[in-house]
Amino acid sequence: MSDAIHSRLKELGITLPAAAAPAANYVPYVISGNMLYLSGQLPIEDGKVAVTGHLGRNVDVPGGQRAAELCAINILAQANAALGGDLSRIRRVVKLNGFVASAPEFVEQHLVINGASNLIANVLGEAGKHARAAVGMACLPLNAAVEIDAVIEIA
Amino acid sequence: MSDAIHSRLKELGITLPAAAAPAANYVPYVISGNMLYLSGQLPIEDGKVAVTGHLGRNVDVPGGQRAAELCAINILAQANAALGGDLSRIRRVVKLNGFVASAPEFVEQHLVINGASNLIANVLGEAGKHARAAVGMACLPLNAAVEIDAVIEIA
Amino acid sequence: MSDAIHSRLKELGITLPAAAAPAANYVPYVISGNMLYLSGQLPIEDGKVAVTGHLGRNVDVPGGQRAAELCAINILAQANAALGGDLSRIRRVVKLNGFVASAPEFVEQHLVINGASNLIANVLGEAGKHARAAVGMACLPLNAAVEIDAVIEIA
Repeated sequence: MSDAIHSRLKELGITLPAAAAPAANYVPYVISGNMLYLSGQLPIEDGKVAVTGHLGRNVDVPGGQRAAELCAINILAQANAALGGDLSRIRRVVKLNGFVASAPEFVEQHLVINGASNLIANVLGEAGKHARAAVGMACLPLNAAVEIDAVIEIA
Repeated sequence: MSDAIHSRLKELGITLPAAAAPAANYVPYVISGNMLYLSGQLPIEDGKVAVTGHLGRNVDVPGGQRAAELCAINILAQANAALGGDLSRIRRVVKLNGFVASAPEFVEQHLVINGASNLIANVLGEAGKHARAAVGMACLPLNAAVEIDAVIEIA
Repeated sequence: MSDAIHSRLKELGITLPAAAAPAANYVPYVISGNMLYLSGQLPIEDGKVAVTGHLGRNVDVPGGQRAAELCAINILAQANAALGGDLSRIRRVVKLNGFVASAPEFVEQHLVINGASNLIANVLGEAGKHARAAVGMACLPLNAAVEIDAVIEIA
């Protein structure tokens, strides 16, 4: 039962979008044993990339954090689809990789990705505390400001 | 038996090169349990990097897709070496990470990495459908236009 | 017993620092089954980032290799904390991802990350031989020249 987690999402005012369908010869997630591997998620809201550009150029840290939150919401939406709507099957978010489109002098990728880390810990509690990397990219698909992928241990 | 897969490679006109040997204190692949982790592969053909430069600067999308195909062929060549020539031991390509050398305004990394995703799905069918991330890099080793690493579940 | 490995560290003149504590809603490592996932480590020495800037701009290859060595030392320090001080529980370093802050024309990320690969192989022997990726980033947190994360199989 993931009622507790879905209630927590409601409390936080988070609505999980319909998980985006595969658009090509890759898929949004693969389950291997008890590990769920999620494709890189963009800050998509209402079907389009909501935060575009580069940190340090035309996106500020709060804007980047909002992008990271949207990536995290899409990660949860894909996990929800993968787990048949039962997010309580998440035993542990093992690793997040946070990719931040960055001007060469922008050095606060860790603060940007905190947007995702905080949201996931808020929703999932201890099971949401993950290892991570946060790095600065030349650019990202569809001019997204942030992309995040994930490895999740599931029951 | 991987006869079916080797036949499919032949049909597609793909010849797997000899897998490059380890050149340093790292190795081309590690098997841990039933997971095969592959080092980042460059678009090497006939022993040298065949596609160099940056997307959005001096490499166009078809050129980048060709680079991604070559990376995918080298992934299959390393997997073939790791699996004693029996590619039917691939149960599932779990994850590809696609790194695309990109000018800051290039935002079609996903189209470039489709070159690898399509090739792997063409060769392996359902077992080739993977999660992935596609991101834009400042630059890559030996000026390669693309680098791709992989995690593969094996029997 | 990891006496042999701790002796080897001493021989090599390497002192493991106290592992940095979690600073946010993410953690330095997660153990899932027999796999240890480590967060991206920066070239921190004496509590601060010791090598800052970009390869190909204001950091040369030996400077970058020193940064990669420091990242590797912090990886070992975190592994030591995760494994209760017993580094002999490392069965195999499975994968390193080496992120190198790079000017767009710098193409020797592999040489930089050899600093980490060599140190880890020197300390751990065969168990230290890993798959890896080495890629060039627009920039990194706190202006670090290098960031490296790791997946390690443990007993």
